[in-house]
Amino acid sequence: MDTPLQRADKVLHRINELASISEDENFITRTYGTKKFIEGRSKVQQWMNEAGLLTRVDNIGNIRGIVLSKNTNAKTFVIASHIDTVINAGRFDGPLGVILGLDLLQELIRLNADLPFHIELIGFCDEEGARFHTTYLGSAAVTGSFDTSLLDSKDANGITLEEVIVANGGDVNNLSKDAIAKQEWLGYFEIHIEQGPVLYEKNIPVGVVTSIAGQCRVGMIFNGEAGHAGTVPMHMRKDALACAAEFISETEKYAANNKAIVATVGKVHIINSASNVIPGEVICSLDLRSAEETQLSTAYTAIKKIAEDLCEKRQIVLEWNLIQQTTPVTCDVQMNKLLMESVMDCGYEPVAIVSGAGHDAVPVSKVSPVAMLFVKCFKGISHNPAEDVAVDDIAAAISVSDNFINKLIKLHST
Amino acid sequence: MDTPLQRADKVLHRINELASISEDENFITRTYGTKKFIEGRSKVQQWMNEAGLLTRVDNIGNIRGIVLSKNTNAKTFVIASHIDTVINAGRFDGPLGVILGLDLLQELIRLNADLPFHIELIGFCDEEGARFHTTYLGSAAVTGSFDTSLLDSKDANGITLEEVIVANGGDVNNLSKDAIAKQEWLGYFEIHIEQGPVLYEKNIPVGVVTSIAGQCRVGMIFNGEAGHAGTVPMHMRKDALACAAEFISETEKYAANNKAIVATVGKVHIINSASNVIPGEVICSLDLRSAEETQLSTAYTAIKKIAEDLCEKRQIVLEWNLIQQTTPVTCDVQMNKLLMESVMDCGYEPVAIVSGAGHDAVPVSKVSPVAMLFVKCFKGISHNPAEDVAVDDIAAAISVSDNFINKLIKLHST
Repeated sequence: MDTPLQRADKVLHRINELASISEDENFITRTYGTKKFIEGRSKVQQWMNEAGLLTRVDNIGNIRGIVLSKNTNAKTFVIASHIDTVINAGRFDGPLGVILGLDLLQELIRLNADLPFHIELIGFCDEEGARFHTTYLGSAAVTGSFDTSLLDSKDANGITLEEVIVANGGDVNNLSKDAIAKQEWLGYFEIHIEQGPVLYEKNIPVGVVTSIAGQCRVGMIFNGEAGHAGTVPMHMRKDALACAAEFISETEKYAANNKAIVATVGKVHIINSASNVIPGEVICSLDLRSAEETQLSTAYTAIKKIAEDLCEKRQIVLEWNLIQQTTPVTCDVQMNKLLMESVMDCGYEPVAIVSGAGHDAVPVSKVSPVAMLFVKCFKGISHNPAEDVAVDDIAAAISVSDNFINKLIKLHST
Repeated sequence: MDTPLQRADKVLHRINELASISEDENFITRTYGTKKFIEGRSKVQQWMNEAGLLTRVDNIGNIRGIVLSKNTNAKTFVIASHIDTVINAGRFDGPLGVILGLDLLQELIRLNADLPFHIELIGFCDEEGARFHTTYLGSAAVTGSFDTSLLDSKDANGITLEEVIVANGGDVNNLSKDAIAKQEWLGYFEIHIEQGPVLYEKNIPVGVVTSIAGQCRVGMIFNGEAGHAGTVPMHMRKDALACAAEFISETEKYAANNKAIVATVGKVHIINSASNVIPGEVICSLDLRSAEETQLSTAYTAIKKIAEDLCEKRQIVLEWNLIQQTTPVTCDVQMNKLLMESVMDCGYEPVAIVSGAGHDAVPVSKVSPVAMLFVKCFKGISHNPAEDVAVDDIAAAISVSDNFINKLIKLHST
């Protein structure tokens, strides 16, 4: 019997092995459906087979391995994360949840656990959407929410999604057959790196996700009047950048005063910018997130009002375009109670975290209760080669997850 | 005898004729030394000749026409502006001063005025610096301040300034011989469009320039920490753009509260920007101007302090680079007194204006008293095809300038 640290070491070893399979020899890139993606997926399937799971690749390209309950009518508990990556990725975003999940199943198999539910481990094929600019392809298929109009989407080389599916041996007419029907889901559990600094700053290895933030993405154009930086007095200006700057400051202030909100202006582009020209037109992005739907909608309205008021005051014409809107996901209260108890059982301080980033748990939440365990990552850095997770923290995640699954088994065995 | 309006009409006609000579058939571009520049200059020389001026093209390429005093020991009064343009220019910036100046001389010739000083009309060949990115080539040569190290400067096609001078028939070894020696200058008078909105807003045709602003150009880099827009709480961010935005707002506030100052952030560039990434590094420009040297230096220090304090508060690393610094130029008090009287003699409200833009008067001020008359332009728009001056306002400038030159003649004849 291995200790959690020995198991964590093995998990880390496999994460590194998977990371070595990359489209680019200088950094980690494994986007959906590529040769290297398939090579990586085969490696994961091989590990699943060795552990004794019944494995298959489904039509969209997810790798799935199941451990069956003796009760053939049992529901299915899914443990999953994704095996695709962004371009120039870190090693842990996605693979940690799949490889650590496999370790949990191996342990159950070793213990010959009597399962009151089937456990299916899934390595989703596309969460990041780096190739087709559409996220959650894999989990959408598993939850029966795959949008077939996406089949015509093209990647940068003009290859369609359908062509990729077919080339990978999938059948686009059978995608819906891979879905787990709503009534069959017992629950969903995803282990993922935090991708933020909360656990790192607190120096606590794991945290329980209470919800996944909803998001509004807005595109703004501030239309003022360009002018000569030397000849137009300050009070006669309609400086689009000065207006945008005040908007950025006011938005930051609003979010800082509302704990449930994060707001970010990530892009600013000045049309025909020059150091000696008063900016006439400025394009900005706004990314607004909250785990609480009411707060999100209140903040959206308030921040839009801030922009409108500033533009009115400054005689700037505002274009405000809501580009994307997703509602927050609340993690399952009952599973989270067990998970939090497991954290404390293992001797860690309980930390509840709102996930600001989206995860496969978002589409799954439409059909199943979901729970997520976050693992501390170095400085919160992610989507970056500097992404790192300490082996001790992987061991902590293993201990907590073992405990959690045993609690779940006990709960459903009674 | 033509009325000022008839004369203005002729001036406008010539301005349009000169504007039709362009490197690009769709818009106005006549940069230093090009074929079209030379064609335009020849046209101006032809007009000068027709008016009875003694003309020549000097080595750097200025077109110069003189009306001599009977007193061979007389000093020289220079009326000038430039005949080169920016790319995609308006019709008036530069040519107005040269062609209106020619009209003034024609009138003196018609009246057979007894001149106590020579009057030289100069069409400077390069004020905008669009071709070699170095301004005032023409006026530098005339004032004896030409920097010969510039001869090696190359244009976008790799042609050196020296090659252009030689191809235009100039001799680079004789550039200094074209200078008017300091003791020979009686004064310098430049008529120019305002390039700002003050006269347009007041609806007054002309204004007297009291000074030309000094300028500081600064390049800034705000170094914070990039991060995921969803996962990093507001209080844990080191958002370089939020810092830059606060700087822009504070700078605007400072300038608005200090009438002698204009401050502009014209460029903002976020490194690796994305709508869902907290900006980690932001590059900004600052353009700071004032007609008062002490105010300029006080403002520079204060705004630098604003940046430093904000960066310290936000744990942002600031790079602050002073790229360019020019001192303000004060126009000649005695000439301005006469010019202001002329404005009032002609029935216009006296308006004193600080020029925020640089002009040939800046290098000339090192060797001669300078005066400038600004003419109202449509909405203050300049460096733009929409640049426009009403014929009535040209007529007003003619009346005021006639009056001014007559006052000068009277003053120096006594």
